[in-house]
Amino acid sequence: MTISKNEIKFIKSLSQKKFREQYSLFVVEGEKLVQEALNSRFNVRNLYKIDDIGEDNMAKISNLATPSPALAVVEMPEPTSIEEISEIIDQHPLALGLDAVRDPGNLGTILRIADWFGVDVIFASKDCVDIYNPKALQATMGAIFRKRVIYSDLGEICDKFRGAGLQVYGTFLDGQIIHNQTLTKDGLIVMGNEANGISKEIERKVTSKLFIPSYTKDGSTSESLNVAIATAITCYEFRRQ
Amino acid sequence: MTISKNEIKFIKSLSQKKFREQYSLFVVEGEKLVQEALNSRFNVRNLYKIDDIGEDNMAKISNLATPSPALAVVEMPEPTSIEEISEIIDQHPLALGLDAVRDPGNLGTILRIADWFGVDVIFASKDCVDIYNPKALQATMGAIFRKRVIYSDLGEICDKFRGAGLQVYGTFLDGQIIHNQTLTKDGLIVMGNEANGISKEIERKVTSKLFIPSYTKDGSTSESLNVAIATAITCYEFRRQ
Repeated sequence: MTISKNEIKFIKSLSQKKFREQYSLFVVEGEKLVQEALNSRFNVRNLYKIDDIGEDNMAKISNLATPSPALAVVEMPEPTSIEEISEIIDQHPLALGLDAVRDPGNLGTILRIADWFGVDVIFASKDCVDIYNPKALQATMGAIFRKRVIYSDLGEICDKFRGAGLQVYGTFLDGQIIHNQTLTKDGLIVMGNEANGISKEIERKVTSKLFIPSYTKDGSTSESLNVAIATAITCYEFRRQ
Repeated sequence: MTISKNEIKFIKSLSQKKFREQYSLFVVEGEKLVQEALNSRFNVRNLYKIDDIGEDNMAKISNLATPSPALAVVEMPEPTSIEEISEIIDQHPLALGLDAVRDPGNLGTILRIADWFGVDVIFASKDCVDIYNPKALQATMGAIFRKRVIYSDLGEICDKFRGAGLQVYGTFLDGQIIHNQTLTKDGLIVMGNEANGISKEIERKVTSKLFIPSYTKDGSTSESLNVAIATAITCYEFRRQ
């Protein structure tokens, strides 16, 4: 197998969100991630191996500093329809809602955490970073192929959860200490933006405000927890109860 | 104030561990981090502001893609003596022990987590990444100035904790579910290397093996949690009980 100049150019273009969206395709790299793509419900459109196309060509199509032995062009799943979203919520899941999470590494790590804690659906506001961003994909460690990430209006998603009689949780500095609250087995757990936390619009829709307490002795820290760390602790507490 | 060529060369050299160790100096950047250095018990040897030395010179001495308005050269604290280590352990702290944590971002994030959960002493094995590495420092978000990081033989540290009648905890895939265990208010919590976990040598010294359970429904995930995430959940559970 060889690879044409046009093919190289096309694959490279998929490092940009606008082209990923235009073609509904994304790129995964690394033997493990490529293998997980092949074993998943996702369709692999094309598979490139360094043994077939050569090191130079792999370096040209790769987003990695050190190109890996395999690269796959993968079809994005069909967008989830409003009816499907309603069906999902009617099944009373425990789901994550992400409000403007901007860092690709954080988003990918959150999927990896969701994978560990068996949280299968992640609703992302439209101003979250793209999960098909190469850095985000890499950080999922393959969880992308097992989770459902749905980009939609997060306010409407909150309304749907409430309409189904479910709780909408969020972490806030003025929330109730998380382990003193009775947490339900279902509902939406909203996590906020790295710098600004949960937006005012979404805050108004939250039915239960939670807080992960700090144990600094003298209150000397003004720091918050990173959003991925806060997600992990929150998911842990939901599953622990 | 100006800055000489030799000074620029000297500051740049501090991005390398061997020169940091030779001069017992390290560099912090960013207004917030520099301010925290100035307010801390650490001695700031030199302070460089972009207003004084100019953008071009700041770009020359900076490790950041976008140089910040301020950079400080800070003196490392004196190494902690064996007697001081014994005194610390005699006070029955809850401490972290890091076994070959190699990623600077992970190490920095672990300090940030320790800060949140009021864990003041971190024992790092000598093959852990250097906490004064620029990326590690940046990831601490200032926690470096409030925590005590002690590089030493981690096996000996485990022995000292045990000798003081304290537990040595570690997370393992064959450990006991962490929230079903009675955790003490003091002791050493060992976290392992990113790829290999806790080494055999240290495992033999662990008195209580813990496990953070996964809730994946079909056991489809082979992934572990990132070491910083596992540290956060473990510290959370210790403080929660």
